[in-house]
Amino acid sequence: MADAIPGARLRPHVKAHKCTGIARRQAAAGHAQFTCATIRECEGMVAAGLGGDLLLANEVLDARRVGALVAAAARVTLAVDSTETIEAATAGGVREVLIDVNVGLPRCGCAPEDAGKMADLARSRGLEVRGVMGYEGHVVGIQDDAERSAKCKTAMELLVAAHGDVGGELRSAGGTGTYLINTWANEIQAGSYALMDIAYGKLGLPFDQAVFVLATVVSAAPGWAVADAGLKAFGMDKGNPALHGGPPEARVLFCSDEHVTITPTRQVGDRVWLVPAHIDPTMAYHERAYVVSGDEVVDMWPIDLRGW
Amino acid sequence: MADAIPGARLRPHVKAHKCTGIARRQAAAGHAQFTCATIRECEGMVAAGLGGDLLLANEVLDARRVGALVAAAARVTLAVDSTETIEAATAGGVREVLIDVNVGLPRCGCAPEDAGKMADLARSRGLEVRGVMGYEGHVVGIQDDAERSAKCKTAMELLVAAHGDVGGELRSAGGTGTYLINTWANEIQAGSYALMDIAYGKLGLPFDQAVFVLATVVSAAPGWAVADAGLKAFGMDKGNPALHGGPPEARVLFCSDEHVTITPTRQVGDRVWLVPAHIDPTMAYHERAYVVSGDEVVDMWPIDLRGW
Repeated sequence: MADAIPGARLRPHVKAHKCTGIARRQAAAGHAQFTCATIRECEGMVAAGLGGDLLLANEVLDARRVGALVAAAARVTLAVDSTETIEAATAGGVREVLIDVNVGLPRCGCAPEDAGKMADLARSRGLEVRGVMGYEGHVVGIQDDAERSAKCKTAMELLVAAHGDVGGELRSAGGTGTYLINTWANEIQAGSYALMDIAYGKLGLPFDQAVFVLATVVSAAPGWAVADAGLKAFGMDKGNPALHGGPPEARVLFCSDEHVTITPTRQVGDRVWLVPAHIDPTMAYHERAYVVSGDEVVDMWPIDLRGW
Repeated sequence: MADAIPGARLRPHVKAHKCTGIARRQAAAGHAQFTCATIRECEGMVAAGLGGDLLLANEVLDARRVGALVAAAARVTLAVDSTETIEAATAGGVREVLIDVNVGLPRCGCAPEDAGKMADLARSRGLEVRGVMGYEGHVVGIQDDAERSAKCKTAMELLVAAHGDVGGELRSAGGTGTYLINTWANEIQAGSYALMDIAYGKLGLPFDQAVFVLATVVSAAPGWAVADAGLKAFGMDKGNPALHGGPPEARVLFCSDEHVTITPTRQVGDRVWLVPAHIDPTMAYHERAYVVSGDEVVDMWPIDLRGW
């Protein structure tokens, strides 16, 4: 990723890994500014010495904890999209904001035509407006390349127009699915690329699966085996995890709280590697990641940005 | 629940709430023996002074942490279903086991006809065999009462037959969906009843929804609003959370990592109460539960049995 969009063209999103051990390596690769989704993520990044330029790409109505970081010399830019969130930024002691623009995903962001007005309001309250953000979350997962490109263009033309009304240096957008095709944004908020998952794995991107949940077969029957990682170890919103390796017919049948039932059967004691369907909510369940080289554990990274 | 199946007829499953604050109240209601799904749950229960009679209703291949609890005067009975898990129990310092029997759910448990042989093997290794367990997990969620009863009977007749071969005082089974109809088991491992969720709410059981995720609307558009709890705040394997209260047409459209998009729109700042689709993996995401009476927070209980 650092080769494709080096330096400040990438603002890695820490929500995907929630791990300052990984963020530190992203900074070492040239990306010293980060995107966060929660105040806790910002706090953890600042505590890890990575708070030089954080974007909290989310709306908050109580920004006091963000303001406390700013007061302690961190740089945190906050997304705003309404009078209420602008007032919360001011009241909380935030100094810099981005105007969050809805570019087609029915989630946060003001209407594009209101962006200029929001920027004016923010400036009238003494806030520095650094530019705009607009996440094309309805586009990043589209598997057809041509369709993904076309819809990215439509979304980003809205953002560029809004940016014309807002001003400031930043047009922040994008994700792992659009990091190359989104040439309208001047910084990309990709996060999943660092670890990957089944969903992004379908897009044919040049990133390898880096996270697996390692489970042990604890029970075996003639037609199936049961390993000790279940739906409390995986984000399940995009379905079951998949087996990595094993025979071609190997597959996951279902997950229970602490179990995954797989077929065909295995020996009790066998280790199975499982690929999460969705990386972000998977990381949020785990306290730590073990870094392996071959069969050797070479490091342990706390997943230290979890919670709120 | 304490009225329906008082005292030792209920062995509450802590995996549903992962909270010793709730377990302590279950003990005060007369249920002083508990079911656990993970070693961490056992350790947390022992640390909370609730380790008088724990059943780890799960297979493990490294039982040393369980043995350490037993050596420290806790009582932990371990499920076994194979030569390997019996050997692990012995090697780990476990003294008491249950024979886990497959009663129809393709998960753990030996074949019913092998249960007696497993018990003989366990006894030959010096283990005390307290009886059998067999979870009818394929039955507890069936919405049709007659079908649920019929399939529960089929499953439990297998367990009763296996118990005849095994001996011991315990026939442990059941869940929130079968706590009344499972008259073959002499202890019921129900857990979800204490908090409930959308899935169990469909069964018409006499338990109220007790857990909600309280979220704040942080962004609003003409057709929708966005509140600040997403798929890192809910177990998503059974689908989206549901809105509690609000207009009858109110519904959840989709969840993102830290957002839920709902319709119709609301005011920024509105609070919304969300009911989890599946309680167990929802609790596993949260560090603490706030106990409210009306609008007042009257207590805070750490969700202290999370992780592994």
